[in-house]
Amino acid sequence: MEGSASSLIVAAAGAHGDPVAPVVLALALILLAAKLGGELAIRLRQPSVLGELVFGVLLGNLTLVGFDGFEAIKHDDTINMLAGLGVLILLFEVGLESTVAQMLRVGVSSLVVATLGVVAPFLLGWSVSSWLLPEASIYLHVFIGATLCATSVGITARVLKDLGSSDSDEARVILGAAVIDDVMGLVILSAVTGLIVAADRGQAFTAGTILGPLVKAIVFLAGSLTLGVAVTPRLFSAASRMRAPGVLLATGLAFCFALSWLANAIELAPIVGAFAAGLILEQVHYRSFVDRGEHPLEALIHPIASFLVPIFFVLMGMRTDLRAFAQPGVPALAVALTLAAILGKQACSLGVIGKGVDRLTVGIGMIPRGEVGLIFANIGLGLSVGGEHIVDAASFSAIVAMVIVTTMVTPPALTWSLGRVPKRT
Amino acid sequence: MEGSASSLIVAAAGAHGDPVAPVVLALALILLAAKLGGELAIRLRQPSVLGELVFGVLLGNLTLVGFDGFEAIKHDDTINMLAGLGVLILLFEVGLESTVAQMLRVGVSSLVVATLGVVAPFLLGWSVSSWLLPEASIYLHVFIGATLCATSVGITARVLKDLGSSDSDEARVILGAAVIDDVMGLVILSAVTGLIVAADRGQAFTAGTILGPLVKAIVFLAGSLTLGVAVTPRLFSAASRMRAPGVLLATGLAFCFALSWLANAIELAPIVGAFAAGLILEQVHYRSFVDRGEHPLEALIHPIASFLVPIFFVLMGMRTDLRAFAQPGVPALAVALTLAAILGKQACSLGVIGKGVDRLTVGIGMIPRGEVGLIFANIGLGLSVGGEHIVDAASFSAIVAMVIVTTMVTPPALTWSLGRVPKRT
Repeated sequence: MEGSASSLIVAAAGAHGDPVAPVVLALALILLAAKLGGELAIRLRQPSVLGELVFGVLLGNLTLVGFDGFEAIKHDDTINMLAGLGVLILLFEVGLESTVAQMLRVGVSSLVVATLGVVAPFLLGWSVSSWLLPEASIYLHVFIGATLCATSVGITARVLKDLGSSDSDEARVILGAAVIDDVMGLVILSAVTGLIVAADRGQAFTAGTILGPLVKAIVFLAGSLTLGVAVTPRLFSAASRMRAPGVLLATGLAFCFALSWLANAIELAPIVGAFAAGLILEQVHYRSFVDRGEHPLEALIHPIASFLVPIFFVLMGMRTDLRAFAQPGVPALAVALTLAAILGKQACSLGVIGKGVDRLTVGIGMIPRGEVGLIFANIGLGLSVGGEHIVDAASFSAIVAMVIVTTMVTPPALTWSLGRVPKRT
Repeated sequence: MEGSASSLIVAAAGAHGDPVAPVVLALALILLAAKLGGELAIRLRQPSVLGELVFGVLLGNLTLVGFDGFEAIKHDDTINMLAGLGVLILLFEVGLESTVAQMLRVGVSSLVVATLGVVAPFLLGWSVSSWLLPEASIYLHVFIGATLCATSVGITARVLKDLGSSDSDEARVILGAAVIDDVMGLVILSAVTGLIVAADRGQAFTAGTILGPLVKAIVFLAGSLTLGVAVTPRLFSAASRMRAPGVLLATGLAFCFALSWLANAIELAPIVGAFAAGLILEQVHYRSFVDRGEHPLEALIHPIASFLVPIFFVLMGMRTDLRAFAQPGVPALAVALTLAAILGKQACSLGVIGKGVDRLTVGIGMIPRGEVGLIFANIGLGLSVGGEHIVDAASFSAIVAMVIVTTMVTPPALTWSLGRVPKRT
């Protein structure tokens, strides 16, 4: 409802002046950038996600040459949400390509890989921080160590998909380990944050701060996988008795969204829930739909993913501020942290159990820190003890730089690494 | 970036506390409601959109029995935007089923139908208002007349799709007329609003207030159709030389979004642009994609529509406040306005030229006022002359009721009407 006469003239002149207009313009731009970037990457024999990231970086840093027409897109709520839905759909799609049984077969490998991939970067990050920033508090060292822990599974999942390798054993070890180290990273972050907040308030720090999130996470994963496997066939069998069009797609999406929400409610990343939903769902559950001539769920999800997933990667590129690299004191710390992040995750390759899984590929697949690293850095920026911020602007920029570089090096590195190994089909 | 210690504890406890979580929960709920409602409608031999609307009304009015857990969904920005994207995709999809040549063949019919369908409801609405509200100003009568003009094409497009009739001549006449009367409704609204604002300021009212929007609209439609037809084959031929996956879908969506934005920029409804984009695009433009084994654009758009379109209709149902019907003075005005709205559009059937097009179906297809009527009513609520509001709360509620009823009666009426006519295939 309009208030003043002047706003009415505007409303009357553009009676339909629809809030969807700037969003669709941004979407058209993002889709074109994604495809042009993807095309360039493919011609250079790289996965298209790298091109989407790079073209995103280009669009997002046009401010450096004086053009700021795209700045609003970076902070548009709808675009941000569509990107968030995109990464959920991506993880759901990747999860659909594996079954729970296949994941359990590599479960021990994933667990060991995840543990090594959390411990090594944590210790390396701590060491680098105390070496380069000797005057900083121990809290900063611990915090920087924590930001290096969690793998951002989105990039790796997408590269594996681009290269047609998402149903390989390497993919399962990496994705399983990424889910587990997301949980571990969360536990460490909760513990470190609890420690810092307790120190700031002069309160005692209890074991519950660490154990609470851990127990919840284990209960969620074990519970959703076992319960899901028991309940899903009945859910889809009931749905298959419906005659309305689009029931399979709607049921699949609703299942993915419900588990994403549940993961968040239990204080895990929503993508963990989306991945779990994809794992639980198997072709056999919705065979009656396919038998009567409907497309399988993967084929229905694919166009939605083609639309939404590039939004996430272009936006991630757009939000990369290249000026962060140029701040004083940042380059040295950024280089050291990036090396710690990359080398730390190579410890993962030691954890791969059994033959036929390429260890180097697993180590490389665990490198990207992406959005999880940025979430951690963001939280660290707001933490303080006795009024003094734990993470200062320079350390924050170095963490951002580490996230950018680990995200950018993974696609070409993984392409190279998977190219070395003959495909087992 | 977090500010206070307390928000940090929250952030630390749910380190991933993702803003996407409430959105995906709402989406899961909406998708399930859409499918359950659609299923019920289909079993009652009605198009599924009616079930989506009714289940939306149920969810949105649970406050009447004391449950307000779904209230936040009605005003969630992301859900609103997804619904807006859904209606764009729907009109794009419907536009894809016709070509510009087919539309031009029924063009004269559409123009006459649209003109009759604007003039008759305008005069009827004016008469009803001055009969039932004799003490109100002439501005209210004119305004109420204006709110009855524009057909909301979303409902009809969806019913025609549900019934497999979107490529019939009736569908083309209705959709063409709906696009034209959207333009005419806009011109009338702009004129009426300009008149009221001028009266409020004691200023003269110039012909430019009426002619400006009209000229722009004609230039847009004629320009986008002729230019589009010339440029599109080259655009898609260039795109078909790209090897990145998903180029056809991305180009098609970007084209739809760009024209939607352009329509809005020229002060038309974005759905007019989306429909024009669908009309312009023809299978022959992207045959080279299909020849190399990709799915045709319709098949790629369909799952995206299955996901997004029901959001629009469930949300429209949810926003229907049943209490509006019960306000004093509202029922009589609501009934009279609804009859004026329905009967007024039956004048459309007189405008159908040529044989083989069912006139009653065209008249019924033009009935729904939907979101365009609500936008008009909303603008009217904010208009005043000399500090006195033109449209009062009771008239507003009556307009809302008219919108609800015309939206709800169309699906069953159109189903019945199309069932009478043997399909010409």
